[in-house]
Amino acid sequence: MSLRVPGPTPCPEPVLQAMTKQMINHRGKEFAELIVHITGRLKELFQTESDVFILTASGTGGVEAMVVNTLSPGDRVLALSNGVFGERFTAIAESYGADVQRLSFEWGRAVEVDAVARALDADPSLKAVLVVHNETFTGLTNDLEAISRVVRRYEKLLLVDAISSLGCIDLPVDAWGCDVVVTGSQKGFMVPPGLSFVSVGERAWQAHAEAKMPRFYWDFSKAKQFLEAKQTPWTPAVSTFYALAVSLESMAQEGLPNIFARHQRVGNRARDGVKSLGLSLFADEAYASNTVTAINSPDGLDTGKLLGLLREEYGMVLAGGQGKLRGKIFRIGHLGYVTEDDIEEVMGALRSALPRAGLSF
Amino acid sequence: MSLRVPGPTPCPEPVLQAMTKQMINHRGKEFAELIVHITGRLKELFQTESDVFILTASGTGGVEAMVVNTLSPGDRVLALSNGVFGERFTAIAESYGADVQRLSFEWGRAVEVDAVARALDADPSLKAVLVVHNETFTGLTNDLEAISRVVRRYEKLLLVDAISSLGCIDLPVDAWGCDVVVTGSQKGFMVPPGLSFVSVGERAWQAHAEAKMPRFYWDFSKAKQFLEAKQTPWTPAVSTFYALAVSLESMAQEGLPNIFARHQRVGNRARDGVKSLGLSLFADEAYASNTVTAINSPDGLDTGKLLGLLREEYGMVLAGGQGKLRGKIFRIGHLGYVTEDDIEEVMGALRSALPRAGLSF
Repeated sequence: MSLRVPGPTPCPEPVLQAMTKQMINHRGKEFAELIVHITGRLKELFQTESDVFILTASGTGGVEAMVVNTLSPGDRVLALSNGVFGERFTAIAESYGADVQRLSFEWGRAVEVDAVARALDADPSLKAVLVVHNETFTGLTNDLEAISRVVRRYEKLLLVDAISSLGCIDLPVDAWGCDVVVTGSQKGFMVPPGLSFVSVGERAWQAHAEAKMPRFYWDFSKAKQFLEAKQTPWTPAVSTFYALAVSLESMAQEGLPNIFARHQRVGNRARDGVKSLGLSLFADEAYASNTVTAINSPDGLDTGKLLGLLREEYGMVLAGGQGKLRGKIFRIGHLGYVTEDDIEEVMGALRSALPRAGLSF
Repeated sequence: MSLRVPGPTPCPEPVLQAMTKQMINHRGKEFAELIVHITGRLKELFQTESDVFILTASGTGGVEAMVVNTLSPGDRVLALSNGVFGERFTAIAESYGADVQRLSFEWGRAVEVDAVARALDADPSLKAVLVVHNETFTGLTNDLEAISRVVRRYEKLLLVDAISSLGCIDLPVDAWGCDVVVTGSQKGFMVPPGLSFVSVGERAWQAHAEAKMPRFYWDFSKAKQFLEAKQTPWTPAVSTFYALAVSLESMAQEGLPNIFARHQRVGNRARDGVKSLGLSLFADEAYASNTVTAINSPDGLDTGKLLGLLREEYGMVLAGGQGKLRGKIFRIGHLGYVTEDDIEEVMGALRSALPRAGLSF
């Protein structure tokens, strides 16, 4: 079965095999070496000199950690939203009592940088900006470099959900001045879900010192204190650390420029393939994501039937739309351990299955 | 290397092998079957008809989930504490603004049930009681059955940290009327760390409906809503689910009475062995834990050296004391995948290593 959803992504065999290693004491010497090595590698991928912590949680937990560690109830924040993950970021901040000003854009359209500048200009009380780098939901990559520049100009804190981009699409955390950035193990890292990685820069630490949202499990101070002792505050998902160590080695060998170029090629191939089938992309192609492609379901296509056929008869799992886009789009995940040949296979299966699901070419 | 710490515990080979299975879509059919099956098995182990949820987090996350889902800032709660995990439970509740009354007992002594009754009697404003069933830190099992009876009599909510007991030591959640109970995958379940399991009873749901502590990732309502669709709200640690499915099958085959009896035998063997070496138990033996044994470091023993020798030369990892007990005790974990023969091996190694670490017999 070929898994082509935008996470969890398939894991290379050596990564899966690494998890057959027996448990070790997470307060012992062997784990100490493991966490030091992994943390160093993660900093390379985050392109940062700042702290990077590994949380035993899925990506949403990491997003919550960013919020509760840097904000106080009542803080005014600007949440940029053009999809389900932008909405989730907003919901998390509101759950903890942030006073959120939403800046929403049509789903499938990118965040408009000028609009961000105008919003920051209009309200000096805004303290932070929340943004999703790559909106998995619509297959769109926001122009984080330009957004960061604006946020820096206004000297606000920038919290970035990079769950489906970091390690796939260029995101130089320090060069762009992103204060807190989170990603997850089950995306570009080609590792099973269960770990979330978060970088915490200098301005974020300053905000943290004053942040009053309640926290315990997610607390960055505890993470820092224990990382100095080469541990995590709470029992870590040891097996996933084993898998991650293997995966990070192969990512280091490939090198960041090659990883980004590969995702670009695979993304191009996906978009070209979709168009050659006479289908159209859901998201503005100028901002098309190199990790996930969302495709409009044309009139006549029974999307549920298509996904069922692909799974049952072609051994291929694609993703549907969620929420208000259910039945209106379907999505191909192409991040992490996916090649151009894999995308060709998807296109071959689509070519055969689409007519059977009601689409006449 | 034999791992004899109180978690993570060693995993049986088939459990580790299960994790080599490739990723699946956590919103698809195969995962739906997996979560339904696992949840049913967990309910058997919790001995409950109530909801049981699987959280992608370590046990401390599960403890935090119990607190934030059932309490509001300012709620008066009674925290029973006789060790580090009781202190942690208290700290979590205080982090979220609970008004905590501590009822502390000497470390190594059990919670006194009469004292609990007196405290509840003295302050009718108390809403909930927090208790650790098995204090991993000192090797002591509190009399949860008697504590529950008192808490029921006063009609308070009972939140139980059963991380190092459930699935090892009898804890009939419904029969004892425990409202929320949490445990973790890396203890009696013989599965790698990364998942936490929590049962939520009827009274807990009533409390949840009014509980105002902020929550998002931990929210039980979301967990319930998604479990009805045979999913989790956030991406689950899929590989650990695979491992858990295998482990739960073997636990079901062994049967709860046999599992409890095995832990009793292994616990007895550990205590007898320790005493036959002329050492003494740290905790009150009337409440000695069947999952972990804490041993006083006698005068002359260099505990750090002992643990180092055992690790380097005998291939055996025991645990030290933590916090104020560092250097004063050492601990043998014997929960989950541990046999009486394994304990004999530990005793053999101790017999040989103790004199080398300064103890003259």
